[in-house]
Amino acid sequence: NDEFVSKISPSFETFEGFQVKRILKESPESRSIVVEGSFSGDNSVASVSSSIVILEKTHFTEKEVHGILTKSTALQCLFNNDVYYNFLCHPPIQLNEVKATLIHPASEKHIEKFSTRKSFLIEETALIYQSVTLLHIRESKFDLQWVYNILEHKKEADRIVYEDLDPDCGFILLPDLKWDCRSTSNLYLTGIVCKRDIKSIRDLTSEHLPLLKNIFDKGSASITKKYGLDKSEQRIYLHYQPSYYHLHIHFTSLQFTPPGCNVERAHLLSNVIRNIELKSSYYQESSLDFLAFEGDPLLKKYHQYIGLSSDGDY
Amino acid sequence: NDEFVSKISPSFETFEGFQVKRILKESPESRSIVVEGSFSGDNSVASVSSSIVILEKTHFTEKEVHGILTKSTALQCLFNNDVYYNFLCHPPIQLNEVKATLIHPASEKHIEKFSTRKSFLIEETALIYQSVTLLHIRESKFDLQWVYNILEHKKEADRIVYEDLDPDCGFILLPDLKWDCRSTSNLYLTGIVCKRDIKSIRDLTSEHLPLLKNIFDKGSASITKKYGLDKSEQRIYLHYQPSYYHLHIHFTSLQFTPPGCNVERAHLLSNVIRNIELKSSYYQESSLDFLAFEGDPLLKKYHQYIGLSSDGDY
Repeated sequence: NDEFVSKISPSFETFEGFQVKRILKESPESRSIVVEGSFSGDNSVASVSSSIVILEKTHFTEKEVHGILTKSTALQCLFNNDVYYNFLCHPPIQLNEVKATLIHPASEKHIEKFSTRKSFLIEETALIYQSVTLLHIRESKFDLQWVYNILEHKKEADRIVYEDLDPDCGFILLPDLKWDCRSTSNLYLTGIVCKRDIKSIRDLTSEHLPLLKNIFDKGSASITKKYGLDKSEQRIYLHYQPSYYHLHIHFTSLQFTPPGCNVERAHLLSNVIRNIELKSSYYQESSLDFLAFEGDPLLKKYHQYIGLSSDGDY
Repeated sequence: NDEFVSKISPSFETFEGFQVKRILKESPESRSIVVEGSFSGDNSVASVSSSIVILEKTHFTEKEVHGILTKSTALQCLFNNDVYYNFLCHPPIQLNEVKATLIHPASEKHIEKFSTRKSFLIEETALIYQSVTLLHIRESKFDLQWVYNILEHKKEADRIVYEDLDPDCGFILLPDLKWDCRSTSNLYLTGIVCKRDIKSIRDLTSEHLPLLKNIFDKGSASITKKYGLDKSEQRIYLHYQPSYYHLHIHFTSLQFTPPGCNVERAHLLSNVIRNIELKSSYYQESSLDFLAFEGDPLLKKYHQYIGLSSDGDY
């Protein structure tokens, strides 16, 4: 009977018999990697199917640090310039653990979920915006009903932090769904403008300066009042491309780095206001860089337009 | 004579004699920790001063992954539910390296730079730049000797990936110290311009367009040639404020999110070029937002200038 149990839920003491098939995803910033493979010599039903291993370096504990910074750790000097040294260290095994998650057997859905897509920075000229992006937005008929439900108080009315229902300058501010509202250290709110004809920063001109300044001032002030975070501690920005084409502003705490606040996607509202003050048609005439992902229909259309193969093959 | 050399630039084979004083900063998301301490038994002049060690787990290479996922790695099962397993692994020492950066001896400025602090977004007008920041840069007399060592081939000459020594448009491209050069997924190089009179983007005008375009094109092309990463897969940007006031450009892989690529600090080179093409004096006249940290002398001077308390108390 023990034998039966071990077939259902095998006990792993090492990775003996594991065959690496391919790397599904790498996240260097969090020191983790996702590997697809299989266990050879596994006689269970699962033997033909894939397994996924997620390897992840652990963070240092204070106890480990004290153990590592001793004569037990061998150093290999990579370089030295003035007071700066770089080493590769080899700490004792017990002070340098790796976390592993195994999914065994793994389904096709698991594999899809844990795979990465390549991304590319695209320079969108004014002409490409008109010829490709604008058509794509119109053809895609993005469903904005959920946004209108918020603006009409049909949904999420109890979550509203601040609202100004002026038809030209108004907006509704509420916590973003990505925020668990448990701590201001990862504060994330979204301001949705009342006007329905502004798709993205591409549409903004000096006509919208009162709207933008109103959101910048009243949005940040209501966050200061409710959550105690000064305006100078808030990151206030827009995305290009946005994930939906109804103008909205992100308010996050400077203390943390949410996805989408990188320079290739985020535009500080303060800077957008200044650029429009400099030139009303700044966002109609300037090229804008945006991040496109492998398999993204917009990337395909862009490649077709500039005459590359449609496979995303650069 | 060997003895003399080793006192000037001690050779470290282990961390023998290192005494941990305190943890200056922890970045669990990037598996790194900054420790202040000192070497006991160090008879050099530097013996009384502090040292800083930055420990950082390395990202997995494909070769390491193949070595780790074998019977050489001992597993300790933490939990199992259905197809999901969690383990702590103990891979062989050589397959699990830690990167260490040592600053020895470390100054008060180093300790300040590597400590955790609250941050604030400051809107620097053209006037504030002239009245506060520029004076601060001049008074601080930042030591750029290590930059000149690189430009003069006195240090790190073997690390140069590309160089163009034209006095006006030239630059040297080399791996950033933050990059362990083990995988292109966390690729990070820095292009340092040859000209010594450009402190930051604040100094850039249309006069520098040939320089900026040269770096944008030749820097990215040499990265494509050496590391196989297309220009559209590179994030090419400058910092404002920079960490040192000699113009340099960051080249990182879009695949990962290094510190300092957030919208509040990074400026895409492509966008900088377009803004200068729009208006030569864009970066002299525009306000620029920058991130200032608690305890930063620049923040204090800024507060004094605008008449706030000098404690950084908002």
